[in-house]
Amino acid sequence: MKAFTTKERVAFFETDAAGIIHFMFALRYFEMGEREAMRTIGVKIGDVRRGGTEFPRVHLVCDYHRPLYYDDVIEIRTVCRAIGRSSITWGHQIYRDGELCISGQMKVVHVDSQTGRPRRVPDAWRAHLLGD
Amino acid sequence: MKAFTTKERVAFFETDAAGIIHFMFALRYFEMGEREAMRTIGVKIGDVRRGGTEFPRVHLVCDYHRPLYYDDVIEIRTVCRAIGRSSITWGHQIYRDGELCISGQMKVVHVDSQTGRPRRVPDAWRAHLLGD
Amino acid sequence: MKAFTTKERVAFFETDAAGIIHFMFALRYFEMGEREAMRTIGVKIGDVRRGGTEFPRVHLVCDYHRPLYYDDVIEIRTVCRAIGRSSITWGHQIYRDGELCISGQMKVVHVDSQTGRPRRVPDAWRAHLLGD
Amino acid sequence: MKAFTTKERVAFFETDAAGIIHFMFALRYFEMGEREAMRTIGVKIGDVRRGGTEFPRVHLVCDYHRPLYYDDVIEIRTVCRAIGRSSITWGHQIYRDGELCISGQMKVVHVDSQTGRPRRVPDAWRAHLLGD
Repeated sequence: MKAFTTKERVAFFETDAAGIIHFMFALRYFEMGEREAMRTIGVKIGDVRRGGTEFPRVHLVCDYHRPLYYDDVIEIRTVCRAIGRSSITWGHQIYRDGELCISGQMKVVHVDSQTGRPRRVPDAWRAHLLGD
Repeated sequence: MKAFTTKERVAFFETDAAGIIHFMFALRYFEMGEREAMRTIGVKIGDVRRGGTEFPRVHLVCDYHRPLYYDDVIEIRTVCRAIGRSSITWGHQIYRDGELCISGQMKVVHVDSQTGRPRRVPDAWRAHLLGD
Repeated sequence: MKAFTTKERVAFFETDAAGIIHFMFALRYFEMGEREAMRTIGVKIGDVRRGGTEFPRVHLVCDYHRPLYYDDVIEIRTVCRAIGRSSITWGHQIYRDGELCISGQMKVVHVDSQTGRPRRVPDAWRAHLLGD
Repeated sequence: MKAFTTKERVAFFETDAAGIIHFMFALRYFEMGEREAMRTIGVKIGDVRRGGTEFPRVHLVCDYHRPLYYDDVIEIRTVCRAIGRSSITWGHQIYRDGELCISGQMKVVHVDSQTGRPRRVPDAWRAHLLGD
């Protein structure tokens, strides 16, 4: 599986009173990983959205292995685990200094933004996302 | 000026690593104060939006007097300070146990969501929001 | 299993450009459900935190069944699914008008905030959270 | 005045149902601008915090000139407008393609995280932040 990598820093608004990143904001990294993976294969999600496709999430799993702290430099490694007729399942891993801190997966469905009905994932994406 | 009051609790995701509420989330309370003030006069902002009006914010001022902590019960006191042709200026004060913790104001403009052009604030709102 | 119920409204900041609630903010409701379930059995999480216990999340699962929209009144139904030596697994369901919109579970571990080591979940909580 | 520049992209979670960036998240950019300005002069805010100084915000002004959209590339231009005994006033401007979209300022006070009392801003910072 092809891995896509994005760098980011933990922001202060993402920390909580326990001194570590609040669990909610792991999802910000997942979304960033998806966006940048798509950009790498030449697809801007914003353009696809303007073309009338939305990407609602239907299933999410997230495991928190180690805490992240303010200003940590993190690496978001994203792979496309599976593509169904109209769904894409992404796997995300968040590393800091080579240590896995958060991992998870996120299944998204492509739907027509007018009708809400599922749309077929373009074949070109399959090749680009799953190819080695 | 008529004051509208809403109760809320500080959520954990709103705190930061300094152990207090992150400054960004004061705006959540301002938005809640506006929504509930409008509801009190019989207007659901969601309905107005579905009717084709958006309420972009154009100006914001916020003063932080005392920190807020996780699970603090707060009182959001909202008044309508002024209504222009197409704008409303809200004043918000956040109290905890009678002590003023955050205050500010927020000017919003009513615009047509299709054209982006300003829309006149309904006269009925003037009477309800500014009346004593 | 005892179910704890909390009411909330979808805030505008939680919506995204697809016109529905952004998937990240489901976690706000899960956290609110946990906090209010604990309050119902007489425990303020803020007090426990000041007593030196933190509650990091270690595992999260979330399923999105139906979109939520701005100002929707939602009901958060929270049950305690399991209590281990130092962990609690919460189940959350988000309903709107009796329809299940989001469901999920969240495993939290109790740790000493100084040492980071796991702390035993108090026996009193077991009885209160799991009892029928 | 020395200007510090940071690039960022508008994230999807920052948009709202009006299709544009939610006003709350302008503050994320202000905070990022401050952090990166400090980094440019050799100061990591995380290190300062671990040294026992917090930076609560006391005053915020924000003007919204043009909407920002999902995936817009923005440039955050930050200047230090003034340094008092224990306060720093930052000015921030958010540009997209050379057009000013959001501007504002943010006054922060340096306080001892144990006592909560104001701490003098280091002289070295004055020279670096205000110098030309």
